[in-house]
Amino acid sequence: MKKLLNTADSMVEDALKGMAAAHPTLRIRDRVVYRADGPRQGKVGLVSGGGSGHEPLHAGFVGYGMLDAACPGEIFTSPVPDQIIEATRAVDGGAGVLHIVKNYTGDVLNFEMAAELAEDVEVASALVDDDVAVQDSLYTAGRRGTGATLFVEKIAGALAEEGVPLADVADVARAVDERSRSFGIALTSCTTPHAGKPTFALPETDVELGIGIHGEPGRARVPMAPARELAATAMDAVHGDLPLQGDLLVMVNGMGGTPLMELYVVFAEVAAYVKGKGARVSRSLVGNYVTSLDMQGFSVTVCRLDDTLTRLWDAPVDTPGLRW
Amino acid sequence: MKKLLNTADSMVEDALKGMAAAHPTLRIRDRVVYRADGPRQGKVGLVSGGGSGHEPLHAGFVGYGMLDAACPGEIFTSPVPDQIIEATRAVDGGAGVLHIVKNYTGDVLNFEMAAELAEDVEVASALVDDDVAVQDSLYTAGRRGTGATLFVEKIAGALAEEGVPLADVADVARAVDERSRSFGIALTSCTTPHAGKPTFALPETDVELGIGIHGEPGRARVPMAPARELAATAMDAVHGDLPLQGDLLVMVNGMGGTPLMELYVVFAEVAAYVKGKGARVSRSLVGNYVTSLDMQGFSVTVCRLDDTLTRLWDAPVDTPGLRW
Repeated sequence: MKKLLNTADSMVEDALKGMAAAHPTLRIRDRVVYRADGPRQGKVGLVSGGGSGHEPLHAGFVGYGMLDAACPGEIFTSPVPDQIIEATRAVDGGAGVLHIVKNYTGDVLNFEMAAELAEDVEVASALVDDDVAVQDSLYTAGRRGTGATLFVEKIAGALAEEGVPLADVADVARAVDERSRSFGIALTSCTTPHAGKPTFALPETDVELGIGIHGEPGRARVPMAPARELAATAMDAVHGDLPLQGDLLVMVNGMGGTPLMELYVVFAEVAAYVKGKGARVSRSLVGNYVTSLDMQGFSVTVCRLDDTLTRLWDAPVDTPGLRW
Repeated sequence: MKKLLNTADSMVEDALKGMAAAHPTLRIRDRVVYRADGPRQGKVGLVSGGGSGHEPLHAGFVGYGMLDAACPGEIFTSPVPDQIIEATRAVDGGAGVLHIVKNYTGDVLNFEMAAELAEDVEVASALVDDDVAVQDSLYTAGRRGTGATLFVEKIAGALAEEGVPLADVADVARAVDERSRSFGIALTSCTTPHAGKPTFALPETDVELGIGIHGEPGRARVPMAPARELAATAMDAVHGDLPLQGDLLVMVNGMGGTPLMELYVVFAEVAAYVKGKGARVSRSLVGNYVTSLDMQGFSVTVCRLDDTLTRLWDAPVDTPGLRW
């Protein structure tokens, strides 16, 4: 294993130092990444978090129009309740706080515990469980939360900036999750710095269909195929669960080690697939956004837009990972 | 080799289809990527290009405040003069066109030929040769052009939007190159789709110091080391050539297969190094911007800013790869 790190133990801390040095709009304290200009009185605060290794998710999405704070855990490990409590209290501007939680057992438990213990703050929670690949998985009861997390954070973040009440921000977050589906395909395993070797063995000839963002097993292992077939496999899974129709927000996401050029090749196939179903790619995103360390591969996430969601997606955002 | 592609022969074309589908602000015609809203009368046009495989460079930097057109060649292969001539004529708004050319023999020759043949358009040229690693290299007489290309395109693009004459845009482009230096380190080789195997052999224990963005040899092969040491090696090379002082624009760039988390670890070390020399990271960029297919590793590029360059760096930009 070759990774750019000092020690496996210090990697999360060292990366956060780099984020702090690179982004004056962030303030990092006690393992929580905050907007330097927060909290804003009367605005609902948005807190998310989860294991590290999925960058830019979540800390890269802290800023105007998205998250108020992110709680990074150790690599592929849930943040502890203390972090979440601290973040929840710090971002409360009197209008309450929304927790955006990917559906992994540890995350769910720790965010729940934090919500209970931060009893002085009104907290609502939105669960993200968009991955259609498998029903239960290594760290998950139900579906895993993956790419749609970015959609939920962006759209709920935009609504929160408009000064609406907590219940409305929570509603839109849940609506985005309900309208979104994802499916991922791995060409290679990720390698965690502590293990120092690939999490799973994948022959040079095969890909893993329905991979999780921690290397959790998917639906099947099949021979490597052209991008057109892989894209169709992913889109068939999405379309089979939530038929593609109308205006769609579509993300082709790299797993961390995937060059942008390959993602554009996949996106061309995904766009053609969508058109073939009579639906429309109305908004899109192509890049490495919800990653799994150095894994090669991609996931596709689709959200059925309506006018409100489109407006909120288009609203200005200013974070290290997403800006317009 | 596992890559997300249909065929090696169609990869550039397929990726461009994906770009066109993802970015309505671009128009792609005859292997040239244009701003959909160009040309603008009275504005100097900016054209760059080079081999594909370095995405988002160059096509991802077409848009307001940066390039008017990019000419992508085949993978690691210069664009042909016809592409460049076509692009040059198409983006001319009557104020002339600046060619931004990375210093590789094929690129230099083909851009020169295009400038001569597009005799109806006033053309100036700015060469980028920022890589301090080696004096001559596989495809280069003199120094290679790498990360500073992004700085040149951004800053010259911002000045062009102000409506100044061609000579001034060319001057600022050359000034940015003169004030910029880069150095790259590879953890792994890239693999071109046609070759199907790594361009060079690099043992699991070693890294290549001074790597080129096509996998050209660097200065030395040394044992893998902690991020702090690798960052210091790169910065020593930069600082030895152009002493760090004053306000700096610093990019820590991934080579295509490098996770963002690792780049932040490196950036923390680079920022500490700069501080140790009594200079200041005034502006920064961390991410995969000037890549080499799936290569793992990083490069660092430093530019000595002044007030004008800082203002132009901060000016609004709206491209797929850089937006603020």
